Amino acid sequence: MILESKDISEMPKRTRAAFVNSLSGFKGLNLLGTATSDGQTNLSVVSSVVHLGSNPALLGMVMRPPSVPRHSYENIKETGVYTLNHVSSEIVEQAHQTSARYEREVSEFDATGLTPLFSENFDAPAVKESAISIGLSLKEDMEIALNGCRFMIGEVQWVRFPEEALLKDGYLDLQQAGTITVAGLDGYHAAEKLFRLSYAKPHQPVRKLS
Amino acid sequence: MILESKDISEMPKRTRAAFVNSLSGFKGLNLLGTATSDGQTNLSVVSSVVHLGSNPALLGMVMRPPSVPRHSYENIKETGVYTLNHVSSEIVEQAHQTSARYEREVSEFDATGLTPLFSENFDAPAVKESAISIGLSLKEDMEIALNGCRFMIGEVQWVRFPEEALLKDGYLDLQQAGTITVAGLDGYHAAEKLFRLSYAKPHQPVRKLS
Repeated sequence: MILESKDISEMPKRTRAAFVNSLSGFKGLNLLGTATSDGQTNLSVVSSVVHLGSNPALLGMVMRPPSVPRHSYENIKETGVYTLNHVSSEIVEQAHQTSARYEREVSEFDATGLTPLFSENFDAPAVKESAISIGLSLKEDMEIALNGCRFMIGEVQWVRFPEEALLKDGYLDLQQAGTITVAGLDGYHAAEKLFRLSYAKPHQPVRKLS
Repeated sequence: MILESKDISEMPKRTRAAFVNSLSGFKGLNLLGTATSDGQTNLSVVSSVVHLGSNPALLGMVMRPPSVPRHSYENIKETGVYTLNHVSSEIVEQAHQTSARYEREVSEFDATGLTPLFSENFDAPAVKESAISIGLSLKEDMEIALNGCRFMIGEVQWVRFPEEALLKDGYLDLQQAGTITVAGLDGYHAAEKLFRLSYAKPHQPVRKLS
C-alpha cells in the first residue's frame, strides 16, 4: 500500500512516531554516556549514530532540540566528551529504561543498575557491561534549522572491544560481540550473519567472503 | 583491548575504513534512487540514513564530499527528489554491486538487473524489488566543515510498503518485510526479532509487548 505525506501527518501522534521511526531501516543501538564537570553521570539510549569519516574517525549523532532540558546535551557541551556503548540482549531492558524521563539528579546508571566505567583523563563514563565502547570528543554541534534538532559530530579518541571480535582486515564482528539492533522505537532484534561481500568493481560479480 | 586514536590513524587505509565503519553498530541499509532531469537513472547503496523527526517526517543522510563526481548528489540537486529503498537478502548482492564505480552513462539499475519504478509526478525511481520504498524531497543540504561531507535532509512524500507489515500502533515490521542490515562496509545480516518493549517510565519496569 501507499501512504502520502498527508496520510502520515493525519496519524495520531504516537502512531506517526512509531511509523516514521521505522522507515530508515534497522538502526545502530548505543548508550550515550556523559557526566557533568562534577562527575554526576547520565546515560541515555540513542539510535541515530552515523559514520561520517574514517580519517579522522568521525561519528555523527542526532539529538532532540535542547529547548526541553536535555541532560546529555548539556553534559557534552560542558565537558566536551561522551561515550557510545553497544547494547547486547543482556542489557537491552536496562538500555530501554534509560529513555524514561528521570529527574536531573538521578543517574540512569543507578536507576537501571548499569555500571559507569571511567578511564583516566576522560570525563565521560563508559558502560562496563557493554562489549564495545567508544570515547569521543565533540568537534561540531550543528543546528538543524528545520526542527531545532542538533547534529553532533565527535572524533573517536579510543575504542574498547573484545580482541577476538577484531578480524585481520579491520572488520569488527558485531554479532560475536553481542551487539543488537533496533527497529522503530522499541523493536529489538538480534543480527544473524548472512555473509560478507567482496569489494565491488564494475563488470565483475561480487563474491561471498569466507 | 583498547585502541587509541593514534593507533587508529596508523592503520592501513582499508583496515581503518573497515574498523571505523563498524563502530556505530548495525546500520540501516538502503538503495538511493535518483535520476537526472532527462530521466537517466542512478542507484547507489547507502548506510547512513537517520531519523530526524516525525512531524514533518524527516530523514537525514550523509553523503561523501561532492568534489569527486557524485552522480546521486548531482541528481538530487537537479530534481530535488530521491527515493530510499530497503534491501532484502534477495537483492543484497545487486545492492552491494551498485557501490562499484560505474561511468556516469551507466545506470546501476541496468548494470545490476534491478527495476526502476517511476510514479506519477515524482522524478526519482524507486526499486521495484524493494518491499519498502520511500519518496523524499530535499529540504536542506548542509556542509560538514570538518571533512566536506554533506548532511542531506529530506521530507517524506510517500511510503510504499506491504500492508501486512504495518501494525495497528504504527510499527512497521521490518523483519516480516525482509529488510536486512549491514555491519561495517560489507557484513550483511538478517534481523531476528527478540521482543518489543513498553514505553519506559521512571520507577516502573519495562514490559515485553506481546
